[in-house]
Amino acid sequence: MKKEIIVQKYGGSSVANIDRIKIVAKRVLSAKKKNNNIVVVVSALGDTTDELEDMAFKISSNPPEREMDMLMSTGEQISCALLAIAIKELGHNAISFTGNQVGIRTDSSHTKARIETIECERIRKAHQEGKIVIVAGYQGVSVENDITTLGRGGSDLSAVALAQAMKADVCEIYTDVTGIYTTDPRKVKNARKIKTITFDEMLEMASLGAQVMQARSIEVAKRFNIPIHVRSSFSKEEGTMIVKESPKLEEIAVRGITCNKNEAKITICSVPDQAGVAAKIFTEISKIGANVDLIVQNVSHTKHTDISFTVPKTDLAKAFKTSQAIAKKINAGNVSKDENVARVSIVGSGMRSHHGIAAKMFRCLADNKINIDMISTSEISISCIIDQQLMDKAVKALHKKFELDKI
Amino acid sequence: MKKEIIVQKYGGSSVANIDRIKIVAKRVLSAKKKNNNIVVVVSALGDTTDELEDMAFKISSNPPEREMDMLMSTGEQISCALLAIAIKELGHNAISFTGNQVGIRTDSSHTKARIETIECERIRKAHQEGKIVIVAGYQGVSVENDITTLGRGGSDLSAVALAQAMKADVCEIYTDVTGIYTTDPRKVKNARKIKTITFDEMLEMASLGAQVMQARSIEVAKRFNIPIHVRSSFSKEEGTMIVKESPKLEEIAVRGITCNKNEAKITICSVPDQAGVAAKIFTEISKIGANVDLIVQNVSHTKHTDISFTVPKTDLAKAFKTSQAIAKKINAGNVSKDENVARVSIVGSGMRSHHGIAAKMFRCLADNKINIDMISTSEISISCIIDQQLMDKAVKALHKKFELDKI
Repeated sequence: MKKEIIVQKYGGSSVANIDRIKIVAKRVLSAKKKNNNIVVVVSALGDTTDELEDMAFKISSNPPEREMDMLMSTGEQISCALLAIAIKELGHNAISFTGNQVGIRTDSSHTKARIETIECERIRKAHQEGKIVIVAGYQGVSVENDITTLGRGGSDLSAVALAQAMKADVCEIYTDVTGIYTTDPRKVKNARKIKTITFDEMLEMASLGAQVMQARSIEVAKRFNIPIHVRSSFSKEEGTMIVKESPKLEEIAVRGITCNKNEAKITICSVPDQAGVAAKIFTEISKIGANVDLIVQNVSHTKHTDISFTVPKTDLAKAFKTSQAIAKKINAGNVSKDENVARVSIVGSGMRSHHGIAAKMFRCLADNKINIDMISTSEISISCIIDQQLMDKAVKALHKKFELDKI
Repeated sequence: MKKEIIVQKYGGSSVANIDRIKIVAKRVLSAKKKNNNIVVVVSALGDTTDELEDMAFKISSNPPEREMDMLMSTGEQISCALLAIAIKELGHNAISFTGNQVGIRTDSSHTKARIETIECERIRKAHQEGKIVIVAGYQGVSVENDITTLGRGGSDLSAVALAQAMKADVCEIYTDVTGIYTTDPRKVKNARKIKTITFDEMLEMASLGAQVMQARSIEVAKRFNIPIHVRSSFSKEEGTMIVKESPKLEEIAVRGITCNKNEAKITICSVPDQAGVAAKIFTEISKIGANVDLIVQNVSHTKHTDISFTVPKTDLAKAFKTSQAIAKKINAGNVSKDENVARVSIVGSGMRSHHGIAAKMFRCLADNKINIDMISTSEISISCIIDQQLMDKAVKALHKKFELDKI
């Protein structure tokens, strides 16, 4: 069925070089044949973003953010002009726009701006003239008429926001993978592509390590209920639809397994079991800018308890130092750290209505002689901190146990 | 004396790489100490312009001009952001602007736009805040809010136009040479730097081959009487001032010798000496887009005459073919072509009031056994077409004859 408007977003690997830009141009044209109006959002060519950043950091270790936005936004401007040239070369009319030109108005938080409104007049006019519209991703314009950027992965956000503003039927995210998988196919050979996943599940998957799409843009898609189609720019096969919900989804409890090795564990032993102690600890930790993720404190049978938490490995050194200082102050015992940990998670909206999922996960890990160090749960996910060396084994075992190779 | 506003323009070789950008930043800061307000115009880094153009031509042999402007304008956007970062790194406040942001409004002739107006509010505001203003050269914005570019060498024009709009005291053009020379120093060892030259002389010099500054920007500087200081970004020494006129200038008849090998000669023999024949010939030639430069037709004593003219060597093939066709049509004789020619010119406002300059030039060439093929004169220049192999010899001889090594 011909859709009225679709938004397509092509990431950096899809437009890595001139040949790929030509392939994308063909892809866009074939979409134009099947639908009435197209808005294409492009990222910068391959390594352009890194190259621009390198230049700035050769001049200053702390370049001003407004100037960084001025600099970095050129990457997407280059790729959108080249794609428009490539489409015109194939005989179809196309026009490229900067964030400024299509009126993507943002706040003035340079390098991490938030989109406030999008004017759609120029896009609508171009569509009326039969043109394919190409928009530079990742960028907008502030009320001061300065160029702003939306942070890494911001082109996803540009695409979703444009889909919302233009009331598009679907937002297609083209990347170098063919969709969202039940787990990392490089780790588990028989990982399966997920046909449909909910925004919530995808958010858990994204934040837990499946780096296909920027989390912020999934949140926006969820809020405005914009269907997302994640697919490969190198293949015609259907990818993964990210949607609000589907009755069918209820049948499957666990949709995917994610894992990461980015976190380290800190344990403060023999913490006096008094009101306000946890608050004290994490206030101090947050002051140093460390992003505490998982926190576990068990009930205690003595007057002392152990508190464990994880922080990104990059923050471990300062977080450990601060923890030692706090431990002394609150008369706690030893502080230990462990970098040799990984997080393994199962994700699925179906968990809400299925029983025994957690038990099944723990039993599976036990059967495989994998000791669980910490446990944390959300409404639709269960995460375990385990020995880093056993991570791949755990992912494989869980993938099999929950029969994700059979969906 | 502290000037109120100066405009500085740094060309591609001045900002060829990160190290040079740092040097330019220091240079700008030292100018800021000596003057109240600075506007800096920058070209794209070194080879960026060529690289961007290459990408486009890998996609299309005839890329749409609007998209080319979108693409090419990023080069200057990158360099102005980097220079602002470099100046801030040295501890001074700076802000970079695109052509759009400072309101350089142009017509919609993409790739060769003409500046219509410049709004100066943002620059004035930044100056009031004590900031050094960096403007991306070569670009503007059309009434459609599309990015336009001003053609090759357009950053010179940006600088001169900004100097005019801001009523700057001087416009400094930084390049890789220390000024304008009496002739090409690579050809004549004792060529001297010219301290002061008039706009008219500089226009002749520019169009005759001394490629230091874009001719269009000199015309604008002349019209608004904006003093230009051409100097090197790699040296502190004073360069060449281009000014309206100076009484001192009258003393010297010939200010410089220029030459080029870019043209070829076509001669149509035995052209019937009738009214309208020349018009017929050059109408046909202009139709093929060839840029005819010098034309010589001598008085004839028979009913036939020879007509010679020069065209750029790149246009020779098609101009020759067309000439043969016309010759047939008008019953003229043979058509011959000669690529082995060069043009040597002497330039100087003083010619207006000095006698015998032409004779002196021809005598000098004769003394050196250099045969003159064609002669053409303007109010302040005399050009001779000679054998290409003798060009350097002619330049040296004329340079000596007019005592340009002694100024």
